[in-house]
Amino acid sequence: MRAVLRRNPRNLSVSPRKDRLMKKLGTSLVLVVLLLLGRAIGQEVRQEIHFPDMPGYRTLKVDMHMHTVFSDGLVWPTVRVDEAWRQGLDAIAITDHIEYQPHKADVPTQHARSHDLAAAQAKEKNLLYFRGSEITRDTPPGHFNGVFLKDQKALDTKEFVDAVKAAAEQGAFVFWNHQGWKGEEAGRWLDVHTKLFESKWLHGMEVCNGDSYYPSAHKWCLEKNLTLLGNSDIHEPDLLKRNTAAEHRTMTLVFAKERSVDSLKEALMAGRTVVWCKDQLIGRQEWLEPLFKASVEVKPPHQGSKDAVWVEIVNRCEADLQLERVGKVGPATIKLPALSSIVVKIGTAKPGEPQQLSYTVKNLLVAPGTGLKVTLPIAAAPAK
Amino acid sequence: MRAVLRRNPRNLSVSPRKDRLMKKLGTSLVLVVLLLLGRAIGQEVRQEIHFPDMPGYRTLKVDMHMHTVFSDGLVWPTVRVDEAWRQGLDAIAITDHIEYQPHKADVPTQHARSHDLAAAQAKEKNLLYFRGSEITRDTPPGHFNGVFLKDQKALDTKEFVDAVKAAAEQGAFVFWNHQGWKGEEAGRWLDVHTKLFESKWLHGMEVCNGDSYYPSAHKWCLEKNLTLLGNSDIHEPDLLKRNTAAEHRTMTLVFAKERSVDSLKEALMAGRTVVWCKDQLIGRQEWLEPLFKASVEVKPPHQGSKDAVWVEIVNRCEADLQLERVGKVGPATIKLPALSSIVVKIGTAKPGEPQQLSYTVKNLLVAPGTGLKVTLPIAAAPAK
Amino acid sequence: MRAVLRRNPRNLSVSPRKDRLMKKLGTSLVLVVLLLLGRAIGQEVRQEIHFPDMPGYRTLKVDMHMHTVFSDGLVWPTVRVDEAWRQGLDAIAITDHIEYQPHKADVPTQHARSHDLAAAQAKEKNLLYFRGSEITRDTPPGHFNGVFLKDQKALDTKEFVDAVKAAAEQGAFVFWNHQGWKGEEAGRWLDVHTKLFESKWLHGMEVCNGDSYYPSAHKWCLEKNLTLLGNSDIHEPDLLKRNTAAEHRTMTLVFAKERSVDSLKEALMAGRTVVWCKDQLIGRQEWLEPLFKASVEVKPPHQGSKDAVWVEIVNRCEADLQLERVGKVGPATIKLPALSSIVVKIGTAKPGEPQQLSYTVKNLLVAPGTGLKVTLPIAAAPAK
Amino acid sequence: MRAVLRRNPRNLSVSPRKDRLMKKLGTSLVLVVLLLLGRAIGQEVRQEIHFPDMPGYRTLKVDMHMHTVFSDGLVWPTVRVDEAWRQGLDAIAITDHIEYQPHKADVPTQHARSHDLAAAQAKEKNLLYFRGSEITRDTPPGHFNGVFLKDQKALDTKEFVDAVKAAAEQGAFVFWNHQGWKGEEAGRWLDVHTKLFESKWLHGMEVCNGDSYYPSAHKWCLEKNLTLLGNSDIHEPDLLKRNTAAEHRTMTLVFAKERSVDSLKEALMAGRTVVWCKDQLIGRQEWLEPLFKASVEVKPPHQGSKDAVWVEIVNRCEADLQLERVGKVGPATIKLPALSSIVVKIGTAKPGEPQQLSYTVKNLLVAPGTGLKVTLPIAAAPAK
Repeated sequence: MRAVLRRNPRNLSVSPRKDRLMKKLGTSLVLVVLLLLGRAIGQEVRQEIHFPDMPGYRTLKVDMHMHTVFSDGLVWPTVRVDEAWRQGLDAIAITDHIEYQPHKADVPTQHARSHDLAAAQAKEKNLLYFRGSEITRDTPPGHFNGVFLKDQKALDTKEFVDAVKAAAEQGAFVFWNHQGWKGEEAGRWLDVHTKLFESKWLHGMEVCNGDSYYPSAHKWCLEKNLTLLGNSDIHEPDLLKRNTAAEHRTMTLVFAKERSVDSLKEALMAGRTVVWCKDQLIGRQEWLEPLFKASVEVKPPHQGSKDAVWVEIVNRCEADLQLERVGKVGPATIKLPALSSIVVKIGTAKPGEPQQLSYTVKNLLVAPGTGLKVTLPIAAAPAK
Repeated sequence: MRAVLRRNPRNLSVSPRKDRLMKKLGTSLVLVVLLLLGRAIGQEVRQEIHFPDMPGYRTLKVDMHMHTVFSDGLVWPTVRVDEAWRQGLDAIAITDHIEYQPHKADVPTQHARSHDLAAAQAKEKNLLYFRGSEITRDTPPGHFNGVFLKDQKALDTKEFVDAVKAAAEQGAFVFWNHQGWKGEEAGRWLDVHTKLFESKWLHGMEVCNGDSYYPSAHKWCLEKNLTLLGNSDIHEPDLLKRNTAAEHRTMTLVFAKERSVDSLKEALMAGRTVVWCKDQLIGRQEWLEPLFKASVEVKPPHQGSKDAVWVEIVNRCEADLQLERVGKVGPATIKLPALSSIVVKIGTAKPGEPQQLSYTVKNLLVAPGTGLKVTLPIAAAPAK
Repeated sequence: MRAVLRRNPRNLSVSPRKDRLMKKLGTSLVLVVLLLLGRAIGQEVRQEIHFPDMPGYRTLKVDMHMHTVFSDGLVWPTVRVDEAWRQGLDAIAITDHIEYQPHKADVPTQHARSHDLAAAQAKEKNLLYFRGSEITRDTPPGHFNGVFLKDQKALDTKEFVDAVKAAAEQGAFVFWNHQGWKGEEAGRWLDVHTKLFESKWLHGMEVCNGDSYYPSAHKWCLEKNLTLLGNSDIHEPDLLKRNTAAEHRTMTLVFAKERSVDSLKEALMAGRTVVWCKDQLIGRQEWLEPLFKASVEVKPPHQGSKDAVWVEIVNRCEADLQLERVGKVGPATIKLPALSSIVVKIGTAKPGEPQQLSYTVKNLLVAPGTGLKVTLPIAAAPAK
Repeated sequence: MRAVLRRNPRNLSVSPRKDRLMKKLGTSLVLVVLLLLGRAIGQEVRQEIHFPDMPGYRTLKVDMHMHTVFSDGLVWPTVRVDEAWRQGLDAIAITDHIEYQPHKADVPTQHARSHDLAAAQAKEKNLLYFRGSEITRDTPPGHFNGVFLKDQKALDTKEFVDAVKAAAEQGAFVFWNHQGWKGEEAGRWLDVHTKLFESKWLHGMEVCNGDSYYPSAHKWCLEKNLTLLGNSDIHEPDLLKRNTAAEHRTMTLVFAKERSVDSLKEALMAGRTVVWCKDQLIGRQEWLEPLFKASVEVKPPHQGSKDAVWVEIVNRCEADLQLERVGKVGPATIKLPALSSIVVKIGTAKPGEPQQLSYTVKNLLVAPGTGLKVTLPIAAAPAK
């Protein structure tokens, strides 16, 4: 089903009373009123992204890297709110570049403006929204985003380190963007990164940016206890179609105590995240494990014909899960398609004898190249 | 994402040990074993049909009218189980014709055979499955299905009334199929129907069969307290694609105390059903109302820019819902797309003052041409 | 299959030589170069809109009404080029408002600027592109577009009529937009319209704007020999998905002598158009008839079993065609789905005797409420 | 858009006159008539598979391996005709097993029956249709299909070689099915294969069966001049959805002098085939090369902004094409999505100087692991 989009604000019924009123007013005011009316009435549709909440936490879907015409993006700031809301995101930050505005001959530099324009739209849609900017210097040292900012202009400094410091001093959450985008050499860890890290001015890294995955960033996040992040870094309108489970906007799942900007920030600072990029979910074992458990249910076994025993396995999350057997029970490989169930034969168990399925989930990465190990307990088989 | 279907049982890895074993056996046995192996390993995928359970009841999705090569259908009985399971149905009955087997030169008449073949497959898939037949005489009086039968052969009688009686005496649930399919004249209520009804041998009617809706059947069900039913009456393989919410298999939602064949029968006898056909849900007010309430949630209002107050409305069911305003608050019409959310402006409510949305749901039919009236309470508006 | 879109210009391989070069240059230049590189390498995909060429004419798919951030649109001008190209359009004009720029505090008024920015992108994509503006006064008299302009600033006049005159004097093609959008009363034909018409300053009308159809506009186009037009009037990014043949961007099919801006203008001035809006094609009989003939082919009949004769009918255009029988041969109704074939039984023709199918195409409108009459000749039936 | 399928033959309007007539006849005859009427009126839709014809040849889309309830398939024979027709195939053979009928307790063995039932349906749909059987012995030597048979019963012999001989002596085209399905050891070339080959009783091999590709079969076809084939070997109803270009029924493209069974057989005997399986096209260079040329068009170059020259490349076939640069002009890799166009920058050519793109098409296999080399000439660049 396609989202019902308002293509044209004129396709709206206006009551006669309103129409008479408009005639009394001047042209441009009428147009403004009508347009706002159009904005108000136009019905857009939001579709949920299905990743379950976890015990004690709300699973927020978050993108903290995107651009508008106020830097090198191609859309008006409100578009970022509308597309995020429609796609089922819970929270976004627009992060226009501090140092780079290729459209500035037409759209003069105003560091805070894209935020301010989007904020009103976010209020209407009830989307969590917070202030961000991209600090855009040479690579190395690379590009960095600061989010939960208070004053974007303070980041417009001469020296790179001063910009990061200015962000951190506002209480911002600062992360290193697309570490490997210009190759391993350009993305290497330098003294300046150590400086940021030791000053506690650096809190996370993009393990994934758009469809790219950076194993070095993944490794460093684990080593240095930095927060793992995935963002879209989108510049154009988001036209992505979801023909397969792997085609989706790259995002960070953040496990927050409640649905609020403050709670989101606390969770990011505490590192409670899983990155969803293409067909992979990437995170620390302590978060991937409960996410898997909250997503996958093994139903009580049922008796098929003859002496075969079967179980239904339900996957309630948005990602296909690819399992490879470690133990002896169950098929050699299992694919659990997103938001679907399968039945698998678990052999000819003796009734009353409990079993378990031991598998590695190949596309749930606890470290570069290392899948999450899971154990799925199966209730005792039914009497025949 | 497409269901992963086993197109070819040969795409299977067979362990060397099994292979050696096979060589010792004769050709045809090997083939049988391999084929069964293929059947066992092939991984198919089930997708849920989203209609919520209701307080005290499980919402079972049921189709009780379909055919196989054992009457005038075009598929083997196991196909009916597999397609129902994949599509998310909970319970089916195959209802091959008692009087009509156009393939009988090739597939000799055996009234119970399609049931028996399908039953083993249903056990493997854990699908609720029960015995059915179609009694196929002239129209009028029309075609009738008996389900929850014990002995299908007993329905092969000379006289029409005797066949229905034989079904009823086995404790079957008996219903009149596609009442209006040959027009109002052929589908009229006759003395013979009164006879069946007064003998308590007739328990329900198909208000919908395939994509057809029969208002007379709808009216009579309400007048005579017969159970409202919708079935697919499918003969070919089900190739239906779900490009829009209205493209789906016609089915009956049955509100059963638990997920079992006995409980399903009790619910059908008690008339706890809603029919889902194309873009409509058709049922008694006492069942449509709680189904709507379980499906639609109005979130607490939130403050937009200026003094506008907004609410998010979530539709958790599989059908688009079309609302028309009865009261004064809210947009003139609201479309709640299936499995989606929208936000609507409810005007400039004073903070602290509760409101409600009064609407008619045009496509939830409590009687022919009459939509369900609903009231959606809105919590007090937030302080600005 | 989804269009391959460049979501992030950083996902690009840059050769070491280029990288070294960049290090010698300053930050912002590097960024500019990289971005342009990104623009150049990003691979987007164009899908054809299938309406056949006609004898002597190329069928160009044209949209001449759309907006950008330079008036009340929400995208950068280049987005309009990219989306039109991807969707298979041949020619567009951006028509930002002369009188109305709600973003002007951030994007100061420059009437020609959106054109100039889009023109370079159009050259790269080889899309036909020409200068346009929307003259936006009260309704009535309504909004008007001028396209094939030379100087947009000349339209910024005090009086409405002077603006239209200024456009016409530049040789522009001028049309009345969305005539009925504020109701029949506001959209009525006034003296000022007669003035424009008699001065030959008015050349066409939008019969369709977005998903709205205006029967009065349709009628007046036929009476006054104005060109029939359909445009999208899109403000947001175009996110339309094509789940059904009726879901598409509203556009004008223009029958031009060749694929060039000059030829397109000549065809528009000569009125050689058909409007495609939702499930309808709207045009003069002289253009709908050859479009139907070029789209639909009846294959030579073939013999089925027994004495039934069948024909295959192929629909090579992008619209579903709904036919209703006028003559005696063929089914009562025929649906010819877009880009598909069907077979229909034409009865038991005597071999060697030619036949024809006489139908009305309900959704090809030659006038409001009047479908196109068509005759499909069938070759002589084959000998049995 | 979904194919319009007749789900229920009862959804048909029957004229009053016909109805009265029916009342005079007995029940079962009425049912037969109605059913045939249903068959006649039900409107199904065919969608073309786009692979262009080649100079001198029609490109026929062919599947010669599939099953019905008369062996181990799960559908009535007419279903195979209807699904092939809807999917755009030109020719099929049903190949039920000679030695293996697991449903024979219910559907007694009749070797020719599935053919005879399907033939009438094929006539109605104008699908090319011919007689086939699968000879099903141990593996090794493996399974073999004979098509263009005259008498299927003659293949029911005691000795394997006699069955193949019987097929060949009827003028059949005989091929080895799914050579590697039980592994390389079981699929090895034996003396018996040499015997068949030298007797000229073996004409081709399945290089692909369902989604499996057999490199040994590919190699032997090239070495021994056997015809390369790809077939579905489908047993269930075909439910395949085409979400991506690579999701399709495996088939053989056959280059026939005309659209007839005789011409198809001549082309198969002459080896004029390309196999389409998943994302690959597999064939001899002499057929892949003209297929590529007929599918891909490079438009005359056009001037972008500055001094960049661009070309539009159109892919008119149903497969995505993956190109890797061999020469110096053009991007390192090009993806040409199915039925789409792209534009690529070819650098700053001097006007008037012709160029060419030299690439390897990675997924057009002329031998195992070897892509087709192609050269795409570019016309002289336009003057700036």
